[in-house]
Amino acid sequence: MSGRPVFFVSDQTGVTAETMGHSLLTQFEGLEFRAATLPFVSSVDKAHEALRRIRAAGEESGLRPIVFGTLVQDDVREVFKAGGDILFLDFFGSFVGAMERELGSVSTHSSGRAHGIADSAAYATRIDATNYALANDDGSAGDYARADVVLVGVSRSGKTPTCLYLAMQYGIYAANYPLTEEDLESTRLPPSLQAHRAKLFGLRIAPSRLQQIRQERRAGSRYASAAQVAFETRAAESLFQRHGVPNLDTTECSIEEIAARILEATGIERRVRP
Amino acid sequence: MSGRPVFFVSDQTGVTAETMGHSLLTQFEGLEFRAATLPFVSSVDKAHEALRRIRAAGEESGLRPIVFGTLVQDDVREVFKAGGDILFLDFFGSFVGAMERELGSVSTHSSGRAHGIADSAAYATRIDATNYALANDDGSAGDYARADVVLVGVSRSGKTPTCLYLAMQYGIYAANYPLTEEDLESTRLPPSLQAHRAKLFGLRIAPSRLQQIRQERRAGSRYASAAQVAFETRAAESLFQRHGVPNLDTTECSIEEIAARILEATGIERRVRP
Repeated sequence: MSGRPVFFVSDQTGVTAETMGHSLLTQFEGLEFRAATLPFVSSVDKAHEALRRIRAAGEESGLRPIVFGTLVQDDVREVFKAGGDILFLDFFGSFVGAMERELGSVSTHSSGRAHGIADSAAYATRIDATNYALANDDGSAGDYARADVVLVGVSRSGKTPTCLYLAMQYGIYAANYPLTEEDLESTRLPPSLQAHRAKLFGLRIAPSRLQQIRQERRAGSRYASAAQVAFETRAAESLFQRHGVPNLDTTECSIEEIAARILEATGIERRVRP
Repeated sequence: MSGRPVFFVSDQTGVTAETMGHSLLTQFEGLEFRAATLPFVSSVDKAHEALRRIRAAGEESGLRPIVFGTLVQDDVREVFKAGGDILFLDFFGSFVGAMERELGSVSTHSSGRAHGIADSAAYATRIDATNYALANDDGSAGDYARADVVLVGVSRSGKTPTCLYLAMQYGIYAANYPLTEEDLESTRLPPSLQAHRAKLFGLRIAPSRLQQIRQERRAGSRYASAAQVAFETRAAESLFQRHGVPNLDTTECSIEEIAARILEATGIERRVRP
C-alpha cells in the first residue's frame, strides 16, 4: 500500500468530511492517496488518539498526512491545528466565522446536528420514503397516488437505484414502472399509469450500454440480445415522445446525476436535505 | 415563506454543496432558512443566470443570501466572488490552494469528478452492492457467502435502510436476516447463519420505540403489542450475548450513524468513497 495518507476526521459519522474530501481529492489526477475515516472524534482525548494514528501513518509513508476535519468543538479542533506535521483542512473553522458575522448569531459549536436523528420528522420522512420506494419498485404495489414521481423505463435503465437514492437522500416518494413488451408494442400508455401522467419521468439508455449490462446479468439470453435491446430502447423513446413524457439519457450519468437532473427538470421540491 | 435565502450552487449535482451547507446551517439554531439547490452551473453564462435568481431572492426577502459554492472553474467562481450583495462561501477556493502547495501539483479545475460516473469501477460496485442488498433483504436470497456483513435483528430494527445505505454510499455488500419467533425461542443461532457467524452484526432497539414504529404500521396487532415487543427485544439481546454477536442500540441513531458505527466496530473497509 502506497500513497499519501489522507484522513477524514469528524465528531460525527464522517459523511460530510468524506464528501468534501473526496470532492477535493478528485481534482488531483494521477496522485495516489490512502484514505481512512476516523468518526466520532468528539473529545480532546479522542482527538489526541486520532492524531497519534495520523502521525504514525505519516511517519510510515514518509509523506505529510492530509486531514479533512469536520469538527465543531473549538478544543477538539485545536488539537489538530497544533498537530504538527499534518495539513489540517479545517472545514468549520473556515466558514463558521463568516456565517456568525453574517447572521449576527453565535453557532452552537455542538456536534451531531447534521446526520443525526435530531430532526426526527425529516428522518421519519426519509425512512418512510425508502419503504415506499421498496414497496413500489418494479410496478409492484402501484400506489402511484402517493408518488412525487414515477420513473418509467426498460429493465436495467437505472430506475431502482435512482428511486432509492431519491428516497434516502431527499425524502422523495419515487415509484418506478418497468415497460413490458406489451407496453412497448402498444401506442397507448400502460393502463396503470394513465391517471398519473403528470408524474411520469422516463429514463433512456444507449442500446450498446444496455446490452452490456444485460449480458453481465444473463449472457446469451434473448433479453440481452442486440435485436431485443434495440427494439426496447427505440420503442421506449417513441412512447416518451408520443405522450410527452419528460425524459433523460442515463447512459453517462451516475445515480446522483440522474436524481439531480430529475429534480431540476421536474421542479419537485426536496422534502429533506442531506 | 420567510427566512434567509440560502443557495447550494454547484457545477455538478450539488450533493457536496448541500452536505457542507446543511452541516454548517445546523450549527445555527432558531434561525429560519429558505434553501434551494442550483446544480449544473458549469459556464459563466449559467453562473450569471444563477446569480440573477439569487439576487432576486435577496431583494424579495430583504436579507442577504448565503451561497455555498462547489465550483471548480475559476471563471465561474469569479462571477459569484464579484456577485455583490451575497455571502459567497467558496468551498474549492478555500482549500484547493493549500492542497496544491502541499501536493506540489496543480488541480485539474475541471468539474464532474466527484459524483460522476468517471470512476466506473466504483460506480459498478455501488450498483452491484445495491442489487445485492435488495436480493438479500429480509433473509430472502440468503447468499451470505458474498456478504461483507449480515445484519441481524427483529422486524423494524433498521436493517433494510442500513443495508441499502451501506451499499449505495460505500459499495459494501450487506445482507440482513430478520429474527423470527422460532429463532428467538431457540438457544441456537438460526441454521442459515451458523456458517457466517463472523459476519453477523446485531441491531438492537428500545422496546418503547419499537412498539411506536410497529403501531404506526399495524395498530392494535399482536405484532405491535407491548408483550410481543418486550419478548422479541429481550430474546434478541440474549441471542447476541450468547453467541458473541457484536451489536448496537439503534434507538437514537440515524441510518448514517448506524452505518458509521458498524464500519467502526467491525473494521470493514469501504469499497468506495462517496
